[in-house]
Amino acid sequence: MKNILLIGAGKSSSYLIKYLLEKPDEENIFLTIGDIHIENAKKLVHHSKKINIIKFDVFDAHQRKENIENCDIVISMLPASLHIEIAKDCIKYGKHLVTASYISKEMKALDAQVKDRGLVFMNEIGLDPGLDHMSAMKVIHSLRDKNAKLLLFESFCGGLVAPESDTNLWNYKFTWNPRNVVLAGQGGAAMFIQENTYKYIPYHKLFRRTEFLTINNTKFEAYANRDSLKYRDVYGLQEIPTMYRGTIRKVGFSRAWNIFVQLGMTDDSYTIENSEQMSYRDFVNLFLAYSPSDSVELKLRSYLKIDQDDVMWEKLVELDIFNPNKKVGLKNATPAQILQKILEDSWTLKKEDKDMIVMQHLFGYEINGKKQQIESSLMVIGENQTYTAMAKTVGLPVAIATLKILKGEIKTPGVQLPIAKEVYLPILKELEAYGIQFSEKKVPYLGYNPNHVIG
Amino acid sequence: MKNILLIGAGKSSSYLIKYLLEKPDEENIFLTIGDIHIENAKKLVHHSKKINIIKFDVFDAHQRKENIENCDIVISMLPASLHIEIAKDCIKYGKHLVTASYISKEMKALDAQVKDRGLVFMNEIGLDPGLDHMSAMKVIHSLRDKNAKLLLFESFCGGLVAPESDTNLWNYKFTWNPRNVVLAGQGGAAMFIQENTYKYIPYHKLFRRTEFLTINNTKFEAYANRDSLKYRDVYGLQEIPTMYRGTIRKVGFSRAWNIFVQLGMTDDSYTIENSEQMSYRDFVNLFLAYSPSDSVELKLRSYLKIDQDDVMWEKLVELDIFNPNKKVGLKNATPAQILQKILEDSWTLKKEDKDMIVMQHLFGYEINGKKQQIESSLMVIGENQTYTAMAKTVGLPVAIATLKILKGEIKTPGVQLPIAKEVYLPILKELEAYGIQFSEKKVPYLGYNPNHVIG
Repeated sequence: MKNILLIGAGKSSSYLIKYLLEKPDEENIFLTIGDIHIENAKKLVHHSKKINIIKFDVFDAHQRKENIENCDIVISMLPASLHIEIAKDCIKYGKHLVTASYISKEMKALDAQVKDRGLVFMNEIGLDPGLDHMSAMKVIHSLRDKNAKLLLFESFCGGLVAPESDTNLWNYKFTWNPRNVVLAGQGGAAMFIQENTYKYIPYHKLFRRTEFLTINNTKFEAYANRDSLKYRDVYGLQEIPTMYRGTIRKVGFSRAWNIFVQLGMTDDSYTIENSEQMSYRDFVNLFLAYSPSDSVELKLRSYLKIDQDDVMWEKLVELDIFNPNKKVGLKNATPAQILQKILEDSWTLKKEDKDMIVMQHLFGYEINGKKQQIESSLMVIGENQTYTAMAKTVGLPVAIATLKILKGEIKTPGVQLPIAKEVYLPILKELEAYGIQFSEKKVPYLGYNPNHVIG
Repeated sequence: MKNILLIGAGKSSSYLIKYLLEKPDEENIFLTIGDIHIENAKKLVHHSKKINIIKFDVFDAHQRKENIENCDIVISMLPASLHIEIAKDCIKYGKHLVTASYISKEMKALDAQVKDRGLVFMNEIGLDPGLDHMSAMKVIHSLRDKNAKLLLFESFCGGLVAPESDTNLWNYKFTWNPRNVVLAGQGGAAMFIQENTYKYIPYHKLFRRTEFLTINNTKFEAYANRDSLKYRDVYGLQEIPTMYRGTIRKVGFSRAWNIFVQLGMTDDSYTIENSEQMSYRDFVNLFLAYSPSDSVELKLRSYLKIDQDDVMWEKLVELDIFNPNKKVGLKNATPAQILQKILEDSWTLKKEDKDMIVMQHLFGYEINGKKQQIESSLMVIGENQTYTAMAKTVGLPVAIATLKILKGEIKTPGVQLPIAKEVYLPILKELEAYGIQFSEKKVPYLGYNPNHVIG
């Protein structure tokens, strides 16, 4: 029997659990699911003799010991900050570990010990980070094998609502942690490099500096991720002149989102007195000049110069933010928390709503003096509120990697992310059977400045 | 002999030292000036038998002990973060302490010990904080004595260049730490309250939400300080409906400064690769879209929608920021550090330049059902680059307080700021002899909404 301990049964675990349970009995898998809220897991699985659901408190050292000691591999789907104690116990008891989170400094520091014990600590193996690394490295390695010189790498990813469930003016619903959506882009300037020119965008301009892209004949927009520069090292592209990573939204989203940024509604650094009894309208008014003889609406229009016939305005009205009767109902809340509450009223997935994952990489390169470009795109549609494309693209790579580590097919020890052929080739291959398949095509080299024009 | 130890002989110390040295011999003052750069102090004083200049390293515990033990009172003009070890030694050796800095948490925590030892630790006794507290409390106490109900308190202060030395389009020169000017307003939303309505302004909108004010028939503008709300407690005005503190600039400054904010040039949170060899023009281009066939000028104009005939543009040109030949010359610098360098080229006070301090308080109140308003204003012009109005308004209150503590005229022990009559009345009185005098006048009550209009 191969004992898998899955810690954390949140929104991204539905497909992960389904995949493991659907494995034939010969594989001898036994899955223990631990969550602080046992109902989370119970919602996702029917009774099965291949499964045990337990209440699991990651801060309980005794429980960690007991459960980790008795399994063969641990999957942690907890928030990234909670992995570290689990990781230390995995070293102590000699167990492999899989997470979908970015490798933290603390995690990285365990590398030597992990290698000493011959363990695999596979991280960043969800969607983004995860599928993005794997699909990008596959093309990058194949271009390197052809002695191509990489000129440009741009990578975009977004979790959106599928067209058939797209029922609001923002063309957006929450398919992922809403808090992360509200805080997206904060914490420092976005950094990237284009044609060897560094570019920095401050947060308050981020949503007005979008770029367009086309996936499956649909036009999208993308805003820059925080630090694209560090991926030069991750992907071994230290000398590449253009490196840009972005987050995909439907066209027009960012321009309207910028209203919240400009007002200061996405700020999470201070709390508002009396927030609980405040109306949505009062909340908006906090960020506008004091002028009681003018309406909140006119003050906002005038402040941010929103034209009478601008659809952005309809987007705001749709969220009911000018309602003087709806109460915030959150004590000592930050602006970001209140905004999240308002958005959740409108943007929560309905039971049968389908979400959509879109990803696109652009690789510009030169072979024998000829410049070319590859466009690699992915689009995945979810089934419903539980079996989302997000859960599928996060959970399946985690699940597949887990079994391959258990079987010794992925075996190079160390704290790692999936950028080695040994890892990404078989996983990408198996994902195709689940409809997660990139379509690659050659396109003319666009670059940013193919003719070296200087102004 | 009364031994005064002055630690830190920077820009704000010129008048402070002058004041102490000009005291007649009967006062028996002996001044020891300690600075890590001994030349700082030597520039400010001629040889005198009433003075000793020493190299002083605040991190050298042995030196701290020796010098603090042998004096009667310590003045620390070091940056606020360096006071704490001095303060602890003052307690140990039973010496009074005077600083012009905000009371830090660490300083506040010493209050009980300071009281136990019967010591006076007077802080926030420079210009702002300092003169603002004293002049405001004088009016607030007098209004309270008349049983007035306070309705509004607004307080503005600015360090500017005097009209006779105002030679650039920004109407601004550095009369104070340039780094603080570049970073002004950062670190969180500005907060205040108007007619019982809380208002929050995010940093990126701060310089577009200015208010006008008039001092001595000259129109100025002011942007909101970070946290006006906490002054309700400091001044005992917990219930006041309107509390606003702001920083004064000449009209038009903030609108142009906003360009730097919008571009992201005031960011101090990351460093720029290759900054040393970068030209001023390259620096500007970091914050603009990549488009080598367009000029940096046009990209900037278009991005921030600056009209052809807008004087803001001339302000940028005056700073020479589009120069492709001037090098930044700073290694691994942050945008804020580079911007500071560029501004220092243009905004440094010349030897005979005069600076100017302006301050204004507005007090709205109600007595016997009648609403009234007091306007209290101060304008001080400096002599030259060394004897600045800034050094005068910071240094004289510090010096006067020091002598009054030595003489036992200010004697209530504890970690404090100058809001007690015992402290501010005699100091304000003596400052008048030095031309630091507020002019108070009654004006019609303006408030924000005197007729309780509701929109």
